[in-house]
Amino acid sequence: MTAAITADDFQRLALDGVPFVRQLGCTLERLEAGRVDVRLPYRDVLLRPGGTISGPAMMAVADVTLYAVVLSLIGAVPLAVTTDMTCHFLRRARPGDLIAQGRILKLGRTLAIGEVSLVPDGDLEADSVCHVVGTYAIPPAHKREG
Amino acid sequence: MTAAITADDFQRLALDGVPFVRQLGCTLERLEAGRVDVRLPYRDVLLRPGGTISGPAMMAVADVTLYAVVLSLIGAVPLAVTTDMTCHFLRRARPGDLIAQGRILKLGRTLAIGEVSLVPDGDLEADSVCHVVGTYAIPPAHKREG
Amino acid sequence: MTAAITADDFQRLALDGVPFVRQLGCTLERLEAGRVDVRLPYRDVLLRPGGTISGPAMMAVADVTLYAVVLSLIGAVPLAVTTDMTCHFLRRARPGDLIAQGRILKLGRTLAIGEVSLVPDGDLEADSVCHVVGTYAIPPAHKREG
Amino acid sequence: MTAAITADDFQRLALDGVPFVRQLGCTLERLEAGRVDVRLPYRDVLLRPGGTISGPAMMAVADVTLYAVVLSLIGAVPLAVTTDMTCHFLRRARPGDLIAQGRILKLGRTLAIGEVSLVPDGDLEADSVCHVVGTYAIPPAHKREG
Repeated sequence: MTAAITADDFQRLALDGVPFVRQLGCTLERLEAGRVDVRLPYRDVLLRPGGTISGPAMMAVADVTLYAVVLSLIGAVPLAVTTDMTCHFLRRARPGDLIAQGRILKLGRTLAIGEVSLVPDGDLEADSVCHVVGTYAIPPAHKREG
Repeated sequence: MTAAITADDFQRLALDGVPFVRQLGCTLERLEAGRVDVRLPYRDVLLRPGGTISGPAMMAVADVTLYAVVLSLIGAVPLAVTTDMTCHFLRRARPGDLIAQGRILKLGRTLAIGEVSLVPDGDLEADSVCHVVGTYAIPPAHKREG
Repeated sequence: MTAAITADDFQRLALDGVPFVRQLGCTLERLEAGRVDVRLPYRDVLLRPGGTISGPAMMAVADVTLYAVVLSLIGAVPLAVTTDMTCHFLRRARPGDLIAQGRILKLGRTLAIGEVSLVPDGDLEADSVCHVVGTYAIPPAHKREG
Repeated sequence: MTAAITADDFQRLALDGVPFVRQLGCTLERLEAGRVDVRLPYRDVLLRPGGTISGPAMMAVADVTLYAVVLSLIGAVPLAVTTDMTCHFLRRARPGDLIAQGRILKLGRTLAIGEVSLVPDGDLEADSVCHVVGTYAIPPAHKREG
């Protein structure tokens, strides 16, 4: 199904619009209605002590991926905001690109809930390094039927 | 109670040791055993669409604050890693410094669980903009009695 | 501050209205606007292998306590429903009554977020056996200003 | 792959061993290594105000399903305990049997992380009414390589 936002609009709004996120250099790899993949390109600055990719970098990508999942269904609504996000760190994320695979779990009138799995590029979801589930609040003007 | 890590050691290990976190310019405001405050200095690059501080920046500070809470009790253990983190975004975080107030909920042999509340500088905890609870895994060499 | 629901109404609506919860025999110990304590009386049927109080029993009490916290602020709104709940089990809960101490973190127009700490009766919050944070969705007819 | 625990042993240990859970009358529908389905048979006592299945009943089933997922990999270890559980309630659960579909996300030496989706019997996972992710701590005697 076609997404309700174009890749260009999402790039401008979310990947470039938040400087703290823009520096990660994330790129959209897939953009369908309710199903989005985002690439986090590896760079040394992402590492934490122990030589693995830091949690905050993974959480940032997961958040922007959830945002894309939501906007892929409701269109360019800048003021959709995260209300909760739960992250489980499953395995050490070794140096290399990560793919954040996001999908919608539930789109309601005021809330959208989605799931993101971060997987090393080229690996299967079974090798997920981080699992995230989170909720976005949809502002009233853009409410849809639940 | 005196912390098991000095402010200098924590600054080197966590605030400076992870480039993605270092750029935030966080500073330790309080360092006691099991009780740590970290300041996130406001800069425009932290904003998201809508003019509020972005979730990923707040999650990064919360993670490093939990790390400090754990190291304040077990000392400089670089390989303590986050296993889960749950964030609830309570209010829009308007431009201005945030103070991340972290405290331990439970220090066990292999797991430490803590809580962080992000509060606008000068405000009360009742005005918390973000609430985080998370778990750190403690590597075997540094296990303590639960 | 006076609660927006009476203890009798809450007892009828939540503690007695849900048979699966009613059997726990919970009682309201404190009911103020945004601050509620609920007692889970100890009974052997609550135990799990290892002789400690089972997680599901603690989650049930935490959920009903969050419900009470929300209704203490918005009144008797049966259709307020949980949208998320995150529980951290901190210590083994030995046989004995537990007190669920709930408080509001944020009351918005469509969402209310609260926190519950389960403490053995007579002990301090420092001995909390279970920490819960969760969100309730408030149906439109009963929305309040955030 | 064959599970490391038999259906009979799991029934005895978890479904019957915890009276608060036993009353739910749950049955194992599928038991493979790392992949378990549990049925929650519908009964009126599970309802909450509004006529939907109560959250605590769903959380209880999710917890026991995660327990089964873990024991399907490590065998009958009664003292494996939940350390965290995050539940998102996606849709109102109308009267009828629910199937809790559990799978492992990560089996480590001291921690196991799994995911559960609760689906109305006969429906697809797309109609999930509740999504749960949680962690079990594995006691030392039963540690496995991560």
